[in-house]
Amino acid sequence: MNKYFLHGKLKASSGNGEKLAAILIEASKLVSRSATCQLYLVSKDPEQPETIWVTEVWDNKEAHDASLQNPEVRALIGQAIPILDGMPAGGQTLEVLGGYGV
Amino acid sequence: MNKYFLHGKLKASSGNGEKLAAILIEASKLVSRSATCQLYLVSKDPEQPETIWVTEVWDNKEAHDASLQNPEVRALIGQAIPILDGMPAGGQTLEVLGGYGV
Repeated sequence: MNKYFLHGKLKASSGNGEKLAAILIEASKLVSRSATCQLYLVSKDPEQPETIWVTEVWDNKEAHDASLQNPEVRALIGQAIPILDGMPAGGQTLEVLGGYGV
Repeated sequence: MNKYFLHGKLKASSGNGEKLAAILIEASKLVSRSATCQLYLVSKDPEQPETIWVTEVWDNKEAHDASLQNPEVRALIGQAIPILDGMPAGGQTLEVLGGYGV
């Protein structure tokens, strides 16, 4: 299988966790059109309401990196940046070996 | 959506990373039969060859917990325990809000 896996943490500024999640769910709709993207989940940490995690599986790193050049994706990133509390920090870059669901 | 999301880290004893991943991939085949499991991915950290991550999405916590009572799953857990280096440590328990792929 050997897919590219990203699990990353974003922290919204106070009160903006739901708004950040909504922007990322819009992003998931864009990337779902790409045959190279198998998974793009937006999750919250129930104990940290402004902390949103994005979990992505792509064919490879190049496919992921290319997605960031998509003008619609870039527009959503532009909406998210002002409501972030600091830079993305935390998470993992992994390699999917196998399993179920992608 | 509000699914139950687990992302957990297991560390194998020296030289046993691939064996641990193989056991977990067998577990993914068992849970894939369950309508309440949407995702069970087994990934490695390319920079830490004995570190294996398991990423799971279930309808709810109860569905996940019930899977641990399955005798076949328990048999696989029994195979994994002797090759673990310490207890599982690290990861997140999250709530999927939306996205693509499950």
